[in-house]
Amino acid sequence: MEDLENVTDKRFGDPAAPLLLSVRAGAPIPMPGMMDTILNIGINDEIAEALAKQTGSERFAYETYAKAIKAYGTMVKGVSKSRFDLIVAAKRFNEGLEDDDPFSVEQLKSLVVSYKNTVKKLTGEDFPQDPRKQLMDAISAVFGSWNRERAALYRKLNGIPDDVGTAANVQAMVFGNMGEDCCTGVAFTRNPSTGENVIFGEILLNAQGAEVVSGLRTPDDISAMEDIFPECYETFIKIARLLEKQDKDMQDVEFTVEKNKLYILQARKGERTAQAAVRIAVDMVEEGLISREEAVLRQDTSQMGQILHPGFDPEKYEKAEVLATGLPASPGAAAGRIYFTAAEAEAAAKSGYEVLLLREETSPEDLAGMVAAQGILTAKGGTTSHAAMVARGIGKCCVAGCDSLDIDEEKRIAEIEGEVFEEGDFLSLDGSTGKIFRGKIDTVTQEISEEFSTMMEWADDFREIKIRANADNPPEARQALAFGAEGIGLCRTEHMFFRDERIPAVRRMILAATEVERRRALNELMPFQKADFKRLFETMEERPVTIRLLDPPLHEFLPQSEEEAREVAEQLGMTCEELEDKVDNIREINPMLGRRGCRLAITHPEIIEMQVRAIMAAAIEVKREKKLDIIPEIMIPLISDEKELGVVKKYITETADHVMTEEDMAIEYRTGTMIEVPRACVTADSIAREAEFFSFGTNDLTQMTYGFSRDDTGSLIYEYEERGLLPADPFYSLDIDGVGALIDMAAKKGRHTRPNIRLGMCGEQAGEPATIEFCHRVGMDYVSCSPYRIPMARIAAAQAALREEADTGI
Amino acid sequence: MEDLENVTDKRFGDPAAPLLLSVRAGAPIPMPGMMDTILNIGINDEIAEALAKQTGSERFAYETYAKAIKAYGTMVKGVSKSRFDLIVAAKRFNEGLEDDDPFSVEQLKSLVVSYKNTVKKLTGEDFPQDPRKQLMDAISAVFGSWNRERAALYRKLNGIPDDVGTAANVQAMVFGNMGEDCCTGVAFTRNPSTGENVIFGEILLNAQGAEVVSGLRTPDDISAMEDIFPECYETFIKIARLLEKQDKDMQDVEFTVEKNKLYILQARKGERTAQAAVRIAVDMVEEGLISREEAVLRQDTSQMGQILHPGFDPEKYEKAEVLATGLPASPGAAAGRIYFTAAEAEAAAKSGYEVLLLREETSPEDLAGMVAAQGILTAKGGTTSHAAMVARGIGKCCVAGCDSLDIDEEKRIAEIEGEVFEEGDFLSLDGSTGKIFRGKIDTVTQEISEEFSTMMEWADDFREIKIRANADNPPEARQALAFGAEGIGLCRTEHMFFRDERIPAVRRMILAATEVERRRALNELMPFQKADFKRLFETMEERPVTIRLLDPPLHEFLPQSEEEAREVAEQLGMTCEELEDKVDNIREINPMLGRRGCRLAITHPEIIEMQVRAIMAAAIEVKREKKLDIIPEIMIPLISDEKELGVVKKYITETADHVMTEEDMAIEYRTGTMIEVPRACVTADSIAREAEFFSFGTNDLTQMTYGFSRDDTGSLIYEYEERGLLPADPFYSLDIDGVGALIDMAAKKGRHTRPNIRLGMCGEQAGEPATIEFCHRVGMDYVSCSPYRIPMARIAAAQAALREEADTGI
Repeated sequence: MEDLENVTDKRFGDPAAPLLLSVRAGAPIPMPGMMDTILNIGINDEIAEALAKQTGSERFAYETYAKAIKAYGTMVKGVSKSRFDLIVAAKRFNEGLEDDDPFSVEQLKSLVVSYKNTVKKLTGEDFPQDPRKQLMDAISAVFGSWNRERAALYRKLNGIPDDVGTAANVQAMVFGNMGEDCCTGVAFTRNPSTGENVIFGEILLNAQGAEVVSGLRTPDDISAMEDIFPECYETFIKIARLLEKQDKDMQDVEFTVEKNKLYILQARKGERTAQAAVRIAVDMVEEGLISREEAVLRQDTSQMGQILHPGFDPEKYEKAEVLATGLPASPGAAAGRIYFTAAEAEAAAKSGYEVLLLREETSPEDLAGMVAAQGILTAKGGTTSHAAMVARGIGKCCVAGCDSLDIDEEKRIAEIEGEVFEEGDFLSLDGSTGKIFRGKIDTVTQEISEEFSTMMEWADDFREIKIRANADNPPEARQALAFGAEGIGLCRTEHMFFRDERIPAVRRMILAATEVERRRALNELMPFQKADFKRLFETMEERPVTIRLLDPPLHEFLPQSEEEAREVAEQLGMTCEELEDKVDNIREINPMLGRRGCRLAITHPEIIEMQVRAIMAAAIEVKREKKLDIIPEIMIPLISDEKELGVVKKYITETADHVMTEEDMAIEYRTGTMIEVPRACVTADSIAREAEFFSFGTNDLTQMTYGFSRDDTGSLIYEYEERGLLPADPFYSLDIDGVGALIDMAAKKGRHTRPNIRLGMCGEQAGEPATIEFCHRVGMDYVSCSPYRIPMARIAAAQAALREEADTGI
Repeated sequence: MEDLENVTDKRFGDPAAPLLLSVRAGAPIPMPGMMDTILNIGINDEIAEALAKQTGSERFAYETYAKAIKAYGTMVKGVSKSRFDLIVAAKRFNEGLEDDDPFSVEQLKSLVVSYKNTVKKLTGEDFPQDPRKQLMDAISAVFGSWNRERAALYRKLNGIPDDVGTAANVQAMVFGNMGEDCCTGVAFTRNPSTGENVIFGEILLNAQGAEVVSGLRTPDDISAMEDIFPECYETFIKIARLLEKQDKDMQDVEFTVEKNKLYILQARKGERTAQAAVRIAVDMVEEGLISREEAVLRQDTSQMGQILHPGFDPEKYEKAEVLATGLPASPGAAAGRIYFTAAEAEAAAKSGYEVLLLREETSPEDLAGMVAAQGILTAKGGTTSHAAMVARGIGKCCVAGCDSLDIDEEKRIAEIEGEVFEEGDFLSLDGSTGKIFRGKIDTVTQEISEEFSTMMEWADDFREIKIRANADNPPEARQALAFGAEGIGLCRTEHMFFRDERIPAVRRMILAATEVERRRALNELMPFQKADFKRLFETMEERPVTIRLLDPPLHEFLPQSEEEAREVAEQLGMTCEELEDKVDNIREINPMLGRRGCRLAITHPEIIEMQVRAIMAAAIEVKREKKLDIIPEIMIPLISDEKELGVVKKYITETADHVMTEEDMAIEYRTGTMIEVPRACVTADSIAREAEFFSFGTNDLTQMTYGFSRDDTGSLIYEYEERGLLPADPFYSLDIDGVGALIDMAAKKGRHTRPNIRLGMCGEQAGEPATIEFCHRVGMDYVSCSPYRIPMARIAAAQAALREEADTGI
């Protein structure tokens, strides 16, 4: 405080030269908008009067006083903001003022009195006239805001540990609202949407900092500053470059010009879109600021998905009707039903809708609704408003500051350019252009930038683990290849069974009374399967393709509705009762733990015989026709014991030998197993005697290790997460302590028996960064995830390798 | 051979003084009736003629020749026995002979020719005239009989390893069928049913050995031998005592008297009932033959159950109508539906019936049917017949040799004393008296002998692991105490919920719309639960009682049928549709992996609060009223994580504290957890921070470790066992390699965190000897099993300790 007083030549609490302060949270990892900043600390009746005299502006002094009371009331005492807004609205009404008319000085003074009364009435305590008490209370409030729900949610979403903690910075106030020679602004040293190396920001003339971020007034572009405050602008550019050089990263800078003098209020790493993160990192490597390793490590894998988020189908987009245009606040495209409150958007999303959240402006309370929505549209605020910043952070498309949007929350309608839309109507948003469209426009995959390709190449240089895709058909396989997949780690053959032209044969196969009937139905399916595999092999060329034999319980293929049952019974020439009897026989109490996977293969070997015939014949034909050496990897699900695997492997070998003899051509193939039953982990040493590869099926393994049915425990897991009983949904991010310990054991035991055994993971979790890091540490050969997660997986794998190097000093 | 020839002064293959041989299997562990013995080897046309001259009996010579051809044909060449029987039947018919009329010598000679022709016709080869070839073929056949299906099944049932192997003994033939100064017999050195120390056996005059065992003729008691062959009898008694002394065990001796001279053909450890095994061992300790340790080790735990097998309800028994009487061949009582073939008995047992197998005589092919039946009744054969010996071995009740029983397999009827019974009719058998009763007589628990109590005391001296019972109510607890239980290891509180007067409140609790409604319903249940616990504590006095909090998914308590649903809806004042909706909401796709166990406790803490209140209040009242210090052990099911346990434990502690304050009395209590989810094993070190004891719930743990739903995979497991993919049903005998490895890990981790943690096992498998041995090795404090298995568990625990001592030399 002494230092501050010396530097500013003012004294805290001294009406002769009053020093006003701000208290600002300062967490080591930025959490923009999540924590409190309390301005104008240190004003009271006496100082307000003195300030009016010293600045020659009563308006400034009482505006500042009013703001101070409101900030203290809401942030320190927890009074609802709307109570203060109500006072303002009432006063405007009583005085007959229009929305944009300024208050007179007398009206401001009366507002201060009303504010003080409100604080007294609602909290039982006066607004403190003691500046020191104001300061101490403000510091407590800033520290306290760390534990607030929205801050906790933000940390959870961004993987920031709860125990990092925050500082509370005490700064001298400067004022951007002391007249027309003042302004306040926020700027990024590079474009946070695209990453382009140009200053990007906004200013508000004669305004105080929070007003920019809150989006209440629509600001000017920072280029305006160059015209109005040329010297300040030049200084700002210099400082911005300096800050970037020192921190070696793009900066988010808050500043104020008070009477033509520039003050920097705060500088921190700037939030950016995933696209911008890639471009900035690649540019900074070229500028010599950071190394390639640093560039890769700096990518936020949880954001990467947004790079690949689909944009609009160009054909549809061209024909689409632009309804209005707002500010392009966060890139990407989104279409969905519109909702006007966060709660309703969340509820609609939970019931399965794709939704857009439309708000006058967003506030931190809206976070959950923004997360649930596909895109966000606001009427007020700019590209650095709360809506824009949060949307970029969580990878949602956002159009902000659309003036022609008018929302009536109560009636649940929105007017856009005079046209009325009701809750649930469809709109589409283009976050990269700010355009808003009527109805629903289909979306397609995004193009990939040059910098993105560069980043991926660097990542590929660093990573040790291979990335494969879970893909069941050629289109998925092509998409996976475009994203850099090095093979298919999981082709689920049952997905091929569900197609319309096949399902009757599948049902006949299941309901067959004799093995002969079953074989007849399987023979009908065989050409379909062979053709599927041929096209898949051709698409993947000579990359590895792991095909999992039939996995789900058979009743999954049987009719679900009564109507369907009638149809099927007719097709199969049986009565509905007969069919029902058969279906009842097949139905299980706990199908997840029933007759499925390799257990089907053991009781009905003819099913996998057909599949193996199809796989081998397809590989041989592709070799003959395209000269491609395909090495199919045949994977057996749900193995729990070496002997069980031995029996199934024998069927496979015999069938494969038979096909190769028939076709007079030998090809290489591999036989391996899913490790997805806890017992398989515990006995992996003996299972490895029969298996050439292990693929960890972490979905089932998690179900059985926890005893959590994925079909039934969704809400339970959510409850557990909320109560801190689970750090994350174990079906999204691998449970490293439990499931991971079993996997680690299995990997060690497997390698003990067969040192060169191939290890991979193909559950949902294999596309999640922390899980990929775990797989790297365990020494897996590959992870296999859905195509859209592949680029992220490549980065995550590289980061895991680089972090390990850093840890071990290799 | 040279030795044999020297001793007998005969020569193999020499018509001048022909030596005939038998080839007899000799496995180190007796498998009576399971393997082949081939008699009369070394006879041919020339030797038969010579034998006739030398013995002066053509009848003897050609009977022997015919038997030799039949034995060679069936046992060496695999010709069906019925082909030979057919020839005999045809000849009798053609010659106009009645069933009991003997063949003339000429007819015997013609039978020999027919037998030879049959062998030639069916095998393409002549009956070999070369005695050496006969011998070699016979030896091969005896070795080969080791791998026969029935021998393999017997080994499996008796836990004899497949690789123990057998000898093939070559012996000189002696003949019990050379005239009225000859006989053949089988005797046990003590009574194999009761263990009484008296010779027990049977002889057949003028007969060959196999005829006794096959039960074709009904033999005389061995006491007859004393009259007819007094010297031989005296010698036999001496030899029997000698054999017993040497082998230190009761002997099963086959002998023949040939022309007043006694020959011992074979002596081996005798099969006996569990009751006899106890008495013999206790007697032999008293006789100074064996040590107490040896006596305990010698008990066959897989048989022990039969000691406690219920007998008939004495009241019902008194009023029951005796239909006929046979020989008391294997003790115990049985009631069931009658079937006339092993296959039908097996099928009926599988469909859930209690069945009795009725046969003319049994043969080794009937083994599976005998295992499936509750009891066996035969028309022919004595107390050492196949039926009797097998029944004693597998602990089934058996009445043999009931002359008045006549079975018509084809018509599926049996006549007993002229009354006709059809397949599926009920009969009851008393294996201890040989009485056969009309209809079904209820059964009750057996009384326990003095020797049995002695044996149990010895076992208790040796064992280190405690034996508790799974018991849910005072009658079960009393039964458990009578059998020696040292506490209750598992009281399943939900069993108390199902009673008629409580289920409405349980349903109201489950279907409650609000917590208030739910608490109201729980308050109604509380007095019931408290009373249950009070009576249980009073019964068990100060022994430990572990109470598991509510475990199953709630929908198990909801109405199952439509009718029931209507009733419940009415009771609850809701429409059937509303009820259905609610029930649908609660129903799960995989209930085994759903919202149950501690998960219920977390989402509905009020349920376990009620239960804990009931437990604590009950313990306090018992202390107050009976001055008994009860230390309740409160057990939480389905824990998968330390934090989860922490939350539930907090509810328990708070509730317990509350009750103790209310009642103004503090008592000790313990909180622990089931370990039944694989993740709990893997993270047992952290779980042990919260848990004072672990109880391994091996039912659920096996389900999740294997991914086997017990409700769905019964037939799959059977198939796996049949195919050798599972050594045993893992729900019956613990899977030591898989589930056991997880338990071992959990025990080590648990003790690492909390060295004095109490470890127990309370799944079904905890009553199985191999599992108990595993528990001993892991160092568990107790196993808890159903009351009837407790005596066996005491013995198994003692054997485990003694075997470990022997292994480690402690």
